[in-house]
Amino acid sequence: MTEMTQDLSLLQPGQLIARGVCRLLASHDFCCLEEFVPKRGRRVDVMAIGPKGELWCVECKSSRADFMSDSKWQGYLEYCDRFFWAVDTDFPVEILPEDSGLILADAWGGEIVRYPEETKLAPARRKAMTLKLARDTARRLQGYRDPTAGGIL
Amino acid sequence: MTEMTQDLSLLQPGQLIARGVCRLLASHDFCCLEEFVPKRGRRVDVMAIGPKGELWCVECKSSRADFMSDSKWQGYLEYCDRFFWAVDTDFPVEILPEDSGLILADAWGGEIVRYPEETKLAPARRKAMTLKLARDTARRLQGYRDPTAGGIL
Repeated sequence: MTEMTQDLSLLQPGQLIARGVCRLLASHDFCCLEEFVPKRGRRVDVMAIGPKGELWCVECKSSRADFMSDSKWQGYLEYCDRFFWAVDTDFPVEILPEDSGLILADAWGGEIVRYPEETKLAPARRKAMTLKLARDTARRLQGYRDPTAGGIL
Repeated sequence: MTEMTQDLSLLQPGQLIARGVCRLLASHDFCCLEEFVPKRGRRVDVMAIGPKGELWCVECKSSRADFMSDSKWQGYLEYCDRFFWAVDTDFPVEILPEDSGLILADAWGGEIVRYPEETKLAPARRKAMTLKLARDTARRLQGYRDPTAGGIL
C-alpha cells in the first residue's frame, strides 16, 4: 500500500458512489470535481466538464431517506446542461424524477442508464461556471501538492 | 510528518521556484497549475488564472544556462495575458528581456518585482485555454484523490 492509496473506509456512502461516478465519467472524457460549490450554500456532489465545455451535475444518493431529505436539487439545474442522479443497485430508482438522468454506480465504477434532455446553459453562465471550476479545482489541487501552504489557499 | 507533507528534496531547482510562485500567486488570488500543456510540445511551468479569468504564464529559471537553453518561451506569449520569469535571488536578472514580468521566488514564496504590459488574449483563445485548464486540472486532481483509477485518467 503506497501513501497515495485511498482509504475507502473514510468515505461516506455518497462519497463512495461519487468516486465511481468520477471513474465512469472519466471514461466518457468528462473531467470531474467532487463537492463543487457553484454558489454559496449550494454544493454539487460531482460537477463534470466535457471536451466541448458541457457541464453535467451529478447528485449521489445512498438511500431513499438521503433522496427524500434533499430539498435543494432543483437549484442545481441552473448550473448544468444535464442533471443526473447516481445511486447504487439497491436504491429504489422508481422514486427518482423520470426526466433526470440516471447513473448506477459503486465505488469502482458505474454505468449511465438514462440520459436526460439537454438544457443548454446561457453563455455567460457557462463562462462563469467554467472559470469557477478551473479556479476551485486548481486551488484544491494545490492543497494536495503543497499542503503546508494552508493559510494562503 | 504526515503523509501529505511534500519532500522538497525530490523537486528540481525550477520546481522549487514554481512551488514558491504558486504560493505567491495564491496570495494575489490567482489559482495555479504547474506544468500546463497549452498545446502538444509546449509546457508552461506555471499557468495561473485570476478572478476575472486573466491568464498568466510563469517560466521558472534556476540558472543562466537554464534560461539560455530555452528556445520556446516566446511561443507561450500567445497563451497568456501576461508573461513572467521567475528566478531566485542569485540569478543574473539583467539577461532577462525587460518587457517580460519578473518574479523573485524560492520554494517558500516570492515577490512580483515587475509587471509586464498586458496583451489580452482573443476571447476564443481565452475560452479554449480556460476549458483546457479546468479539464487538465480536474484530471490531475482525480489522480491524487483516486490514484488506483490510473488507466482511466
